[in-house]
Amino acid sequence: MLSSRLFKRFSSTVTIKPTPSKTHHHQPIPSSSFPSGYLLTGIYAGVKKKAGVLDVGLILSTSSRPTSAAACFTKNAFKAAPVIVSEQVIASNVGRARAIVVNSGCANAVTGKQGMEDAWAMVKETDEILPPPSASGSSSHETLVMSTGVIGQNLPISKIISAIQSQHENSSTRSLDNDFAAWERAAKAFMTTDTFPKLRSRTFTINGREYKLAGMDKGAGMIHPDMGPPSIGPLHATLIGCIMTDAAVSPLSLQRALTHAVERSFNSISVDGDMSTNDTIIVLANGASAPDGAPEIDEKTDKEAYEVFRKELTDFAIDLAKLVVRDGEGATKFVTVTVKGAPTYEDAHRIASRISTSALVKTALYGEDANWGRVLAATGSVPLSAPLHPNKVSVTFVPSDGTTPLPVLVNGEPEKVDEERASEILSLEDFEVLVDLGGGDKAEVARYYTCDFSYEYVRINGDYRS
Amino acid sequence: MLSSRLFKRFSSTVTIKPTPSKTHHHQPIPSSSFPSGYLLTGIYAGVKKKAGVLDVGLILSTSSRPTSAAACFTKNAFKAAPVIVSEQVIASNVGRARAIVVNSGCANAVTGKQGMEDAWAMVKETDEILPPPSASGSSSHETLVMSTGVIGQNLPISKIISAIQSQHENSSTRSLDNDFAAWERAAKAFMTTDTFPKLRSRTFTINGREYKLAGMDKGAGMIHPDMGPPSIGPLHATLIGCIMTDAAVSPLSLQRALTHAVERSFNSISVDGDMSTNDTIIVLANGASAPDGAPEIDEKTDKEAYEVFRKELTDFAIDLAKLVVRDGEGATKFVTVTVKGAPTYEDAHRIASRISTSALVKTALYGEDANWGRVLAATGSVPLSAPLHPNKVSVTFVPSDGTTPLPVLVNGEPEKVDEERASEILSLEDFEVLVDLGGGDKAEVARYYTCDFSYEYVRINGDYRS
Repeated sequence: MLSSRLFKRFSSTVTIKPTPSKTHHHQPIPSSSFPSGYLLTGIYAGVKKKAGVLDVGLILSTSSRPTSAAACFTKNAFKAAPVIVSEQVIASNVGRARAIVVNSGCANAVTGKQGMEDAWAMVKETDEILPPPSASGSSSHETLVMSTGVIGQNLPISKIISAIQSQHENSSTRSLDNDFAAWERAAKAFMTTDTFPKLRSRTFTINGREYKLAGMDKGAGMIHPDMGPPSIGPLHATLIGCIMTDAAVSPLSLQRALTHAVERSFNSISVDGDMSTNDTIIVLANGASAPDGAPEIDEKTDKEAYEVFRKELTDFAIDLAKLVVRDGEGATKFVTVTVKGAPTYEDAHRIASRISTSALVKTALYGEDANWGRVLAATGSVPLSAPLHPNKVSVTFVPSDGTTPLPVLVNGEPEKVDEERASEILSLEDFEVLVDLGGGDKAEVARYYTCDFSYEYVRINGDYRS
Repeated sequence: MLSSRLFKRFSSTVTIKPTPSKTHHHQPIPSSSFPSGYLLTGIYAGVKKKAGVLDVGLILSTSSRPTSAAACFTKNAFKAAPVIVSEQVIASNVGRARAIVVNSGCANAVTGKQGMEDAWAMVKETDEILPPPSASGSSSHETLVMSTGVIGQNLPISKIISAIQSQHENSSTRSLDNDFAAWERAAKAFMTTDTFPKLRSRTFTINGREYKLAGMDKGAGMIHPDMGPPSIGPLHATLIGCIMTDAAVSPLSLQRALTHAVERSFNSISVDGDMSTNDTIIVLANGASAPDGAPEIDEKTDKEAYEVFRKELTDFAIDLAKLVVRDGEGATKFVTVTVKGAPTYEDAHRIASRISTSALVKTALYGEDANWGRVLAATGSVPLSAPLHPNKVSVTFVPSDGTTPLPVLVNGEPEKVDEERASEILSLEDFEVLVDLGGGDKAEVARYYTCDFSYEYVRINGDYRS
């Protein structure tokens, strides 16, 4: 018998390491940093129980140019009603849409026929508050819808409809605007167990002209997205988010850029390894800052401009995705898992995913234990396209503060680890676990962002519904 | 902001629900219930720090007939030295072996050349205490070796060698025997974070003759085995166990029966979803109770007898596997996940595995929350061989006490759940989550055994090495 272990198993209280405060990740952004031609707000509709907590968000494009829309949706077989409806809106409009309506507090998932009707009602009501038809002259629905929260409950739809109606052009309660406060309200309406609103902006230049990107997303559990473009097959997530730009991008190129960006950002993060029924990332490009009469950015006609846009979108998506991990349920660590030297990028991505979701690795990270054996066991459990050579594998813990990395396994041989130095690195909030399979530098590096597994995680999820 | 949630995230202590005592699962077994022709013991060698805790086990076959041996090993790419050595011994002896040596406290994994030498040293030393060569006349190594514990540390090999030497025939400290106490000592030498030794026996009849099976195993973390027969490819586990019978079974049929049994038992349990570098299940069949001169049971010559044996072995393996889940690190629940009506058995098995490893499902089980939405999200995230029809899927919570099951989702529509009744069922230590995909009863039912995810799990694994 291991009596010290036994003692630990049966004692009855434990002190939870305080979750580091994360609210400093939310900071004011100058109103001039947001893209032009958008109006936003967040409203308290009453989906959430607590009075005054924002739970319905609206984002409208007011640009006189056509607004392109692209999205990636969950691959889960049980797609929530808003996912199905948004897919249909995008498909029927050939990549155009001018509005997004979102609610938190209820996922409208597994809600049958009523759920579909409710999601359509949100779309139709939001269509009503859009300015007159855009240049595309579309007369069909132009709103995309997202919901997040508990599965299997119906929306309090009349409350949501009233909230949307409060934003009609002639309503005295209209709060739609394009300043920081408006963007912040919208970002707050996304939140469920998040501890801070996730809002960022970025400026970039294409062909000498300046454009802006801004966006928001939310976590903080059931986060292990695997999203694909619409209609590719059954898709997965409860990560939802949206990105708006005032560049003009053609619908097809916007979708291709988003698919590329999502693979390297939202599809490369994990909080708990669980995919949701609602994961959705939407991007709108309204061209409000594009030169008059200039064509939309398109991969076929201006590859260089397209690639600049794709890189900006990808980097921005990675920033937004990292915020979700940073605020993961119960997370006290932000850990980058990098895998290189694998036979293929897909192999590297699968290993990084496996390490990032291992309960044993994640509890060791929480315990600040340099338990590379668990990293290795997770690595070895992934079937690869070519055999792995154990005697070529190295594992290194890399601190985020720029100090010397700590190799713990070199070419399959354990190093004599300086435990004090290991503790120093693992006590940081941010660090990297680097796994080199020794296959050379040809293959693209795969990178996953994950967090630790804490008492807090168990507490939050042990009684989520209550 | 969800203030009640926030409060929960930042308060600093929590009372851990007492882990139910599991020691009653270990009970005396009459010495007459063990198979004939075996000698066993467990010794304190000093691998574990705590004095007197058994950490080396020995199992010898003393039968005058040849002893068949079969095994399933981990598919992990980083196979521990004892796994590689045992594979070689079985292969070079064409399925014959007469002894098993096991140590706990150190996994002898990722230990390079020294690790291989140490594993071979354990084999050679145990060979020395075997009785004179069996009828097979083998002069090669006849011992299989297993190790479990921390990865990346070398064995204190001289201590282990001394322990084995203490069991030489002429040694005054020899404790090898075939009574309950001897089997219990061996079972205790398997334990790491286990809270009770896992030892069972069973009697069965073939062709009018009575035989016995007895065996032992251990968990309690890094449990999500995926084991295959030797040399099938890279294999996974830290589940180790062995089963001994006094029936006579040919090596090939013994391996086929074990592979079948392991798929339905040890490869269908999950504590934490992590595969180990050491998982090994060994079966020995020494024929000590077989009629004089009778041929070994073989699938080709007596299919009926083989099928009886395979069924007994499978049921027994399921019993042993369940004990591992029952004693999972921090487990307070024993949950059977049954999936039926899937396109294929493999689809059903994949879904059952996914549900059984979902952190969100497992924390809900710990919280006694009938959160079928998480069950459904896990189900929907598995890619299947044919599309799943959400409106045919049903989920039911089935109590273990024989009272009425509680449907929570019927043909894709949420039921109005009687929360009181749900609490009643979920407060049981044992219950079943039944997922029916509605594809009819043609496909074989897949069944997985899992446990919940508790504060205890985090505590045990947050500082395993320290």
